[in-house]
Amino acid sequence: MLQFELLATDPASHARRGTLTLNHGVVQTPIFMPVGTYGTVKGVMPRSLHEMGAQIILSNTFHLWMRPGLDVMQSFGGLHGFEQWNKPILTDSGGFQVWSLGAMRKITEEGVHFASPVNGDKLFMSPEVSMQIQTVLNSDIVMQLDECTPYETKGHKTTEAEARKSMEMSLRWARRSQDEFHRLGNPNALFGIVQGGMYKNLRQESLERLVEMDFPGYAVGGVSVGEPKDEMLDIMAHTPHRLPAHKPRYLMGVGTPEDLVQGVADGVDMFDCVMPTRNARNGTIFTRFGDLKIRNARHKADHQPLDPTCTCHACAGTEGVAWADGGRGGFSRAYLHHLDRCGEMLGPMLTTVHNLHYYLNLMREIRESLDAGRFGEFRARFAADRAQGV
Amino acid sequence: MLQFELLATDPASHARRGTLTLNHGVVQTPIFMPVGTYGTVKGVMPRSLHEMGAQIILSNTFHLWMRPGLDVMQSFGGLHGFEQWNKPILTDSGGFQVWSLGAMRKITEEGVHFASPVNGDKLFMSPEVSMQIQTVLNSDIVMQLDECTPYETKGHKTTEAEARKSMEMSLRWARRSQDEFHRLGNPNALFGIVQGGMYKNLRQESLERLVEMDFPGYAVGGVSVGEPKDEMLDIMAHTPHRLPAHKPRYLMGVGTPEDLVQGVADGVDMFDCVMPTRNARNGTIFTRFGDLKIRNARHKADHQPLDPTCTCHACAGTEGVAWADGGRGGFSRAYLHHLDRCGEMLGPMLTTVHNLHYYLNLMREIRESLDAGRFGEFRARFAADRAQGV
Repeated sequence: MLQFELLATDPASHARRGTLTLNHGVVQTPIFMPVGTYGTVKGVMPRSLHEMGAQIILSNTFHLWMRPGLDVMQSFGGLHGFEQWNKPILTDSGGFQVWSLGAMRKITEEGVHFASPVNGDKLFMSPEVSMQIQTVLNSDIVMQLDECTPYETKGHKTTEAEARKSMEMSLRWARRSQDEFHRLGNPNALFGIVQGGMYKNLRQESLERLVEMDFPGYAVGGVSVGEPKDEMLDIMAHTPHRLPAHKPRYLMGVGTPEDLVQGVADGVDMFDCVMPTRNARNGTIFTRFGDLKIRNARHKADHQPLDPTCTCHACAGTEGVAWADGGRGGFSRAYLHHLDRCGEMLGPMLTTVHNLHYYLNLMREIRESLDAGRFGEFRARFAADRAQGV
Repeated sequence: MLQFELLATDPASHARRGTLTLNHGVVQTPIFMPVGTYGTVKGVMPRSLHEMGAQIILSNTFHLWMRPGLDVMQSFGGLHGFEQWNKPILTDSGGFQVWSLGAMRKITEEGVHFASPVNGDKLFMSPEVSMQIQTVLNSDIVMQLDECTPYETKGHKTTEAEARKSMEMSLRWARRSQDEFHRLGNPNALFGIVQGGMYKNLRQESLERLVEMDFPGYAVGGVSVGEPKDEMLDIMAHTPHRLPAHKPRYLMGVGTPEDLVQGVADGVDMFDCVMPTRNARNGTIFTRFGDLKIRNARHKADHQPLDPTCTCHACAGTEGVAWADGGRGGFSRAYLHHLDRCGEMLGPMLTTVHNLHYYLNLMREIRESLDAGRFGEFRARFAADRAQGV
């Protein structure tokens, strides 16, 4: 099931505030979805995700198909029981990962033949196979199999003809995904994915054809695939708000905090990105006042937490009172710098909690500003704060 | 300060039940102390340590001296503020680590000259330096600088003459440690360390001389340094119960669950060991019914938690109800096997929580059996359970 209710819209942009009801619970939108590729958001306990307000997480169909495999997943009745997460889950189709195998795969109309990167087994992925796997995973939101149109093809920018060919195959795969999804009696919600590369006319054609198929939700795919930032922003500005207003819109694989705020203004309801978790492990920290590299020697003796306004466990400890409000229960930059320098696991554990909390809290602040009819003010303050520097 | 109160003794062994009051709180003995070398127990949040009932943790003077260094530690008023742990901390003297540098160090009566393994700087460790560092760390229990007598010297088993020479220097260093500790006005508690290698007459002489110096607590050092198990058990049986009954006794660096139970029977009050944390990261799990290797393929589809009787977060989730009591909130062996196979951080995070909880819970069960006057029964059941197999 999927119910989407629009609660508010911003008159000065395409931003919307909504409620998305799925089989495993309710999601307040706009929302960021932490990425849990192998059935675990890297470096973070499920209970920490709950505590920081995660409402829905993402997992990767391809990875879970390879490991632990469908027999194990089936025995647990799906991914929720396996990873002990009882709120909604979105799974991708596996298309992007198969596509990323490069020389190890061959794409045809029927599907993709490839060699397992785990054990070399010859495998086949198709819209039908993707639906079958995602049905076993029992994710709340299922993505159609699509072909991710690359920004460059054989050394040149993908031409319109190439992008059209790819987009049209994705449309045929959308239909096959939908047919198989229904044949399987999957009780969850299937999203169609708009492709079309960097060509707005193709994007327009793709979304119109998908809207005719009447999916309960739509994603914008094929962005954040190596294109220059201005082209990504161009597609973000073009496509989301043209999708049906009464259905949720998901921008795949995006992005920085600034991208998320812009994406909301462009009418996006859902985001996912590995950036907060991956950057945390590399010591790059998102804060209200800009980004911070914990490895930098200037943090060596700094008693402040990563973000003095933050109430995450890393910044505010078990009390949850921000440093700026007098809380002193958090971990200092000096301590996190030390953990990083010593290669201690607790370093990425704490920075992951912080970065995810930052993203989730950013979306919470966006939702509150939309509820209050002050999204414009929020954007201005957000930009000013982020420019302040840490 | 240090106050030690004996609450109960086992008539059939040397086991004792006590309460140890230190500057940062009260510790129920016998106790296991998780090892937090660099100011972090590897892979575990301080809050998790609290939740699993850790009462005192250990840190390494040598490591913290190297990184982050004393200036940073001083600015935090010691280790507690730096690592956000407000219960007692014991620090070792740094002697073992300096000794372990091998060719990079030169031991003289005055102290140890060595090259920093971090940056090659020429450094000097002495009883006075160790006391000065531990005073900055403000640990609740400070260890004297000693020379760890190795089991083998230059390819042969350390002779009695060699062990005596080493033991006697440790005694002189004990005196110098005590003098410096008092000169510094350190408000915490300094322990003397019994050495003497595998020679009981030397152990006896060492402990008598240390008892004359009237330390508030005593450790047995120089065990678990490569000797055969039976020789270690021999020293465990010899030394602890000969130490003053009204003072706490700490067996350094020991050991397996079986060693801990034997150590308690031999009159030991305090233990530390890297085994639960290190083994967790290698996928070796301690359970009530024996040890388990999570990497083993037989766990691939096993829905049970690591230990069906365990209430740790890994086995029982946030509910804390053991699988055997109907709880289903924990993580399965299948999931932990999968995390291990995928190299996911959450694997060692969860197994570390479990292994530490196992050790701490073992000590809790020992204390309860001593309170109830049933330590003998406990030992028999413990041995039978552990032999059962998982």
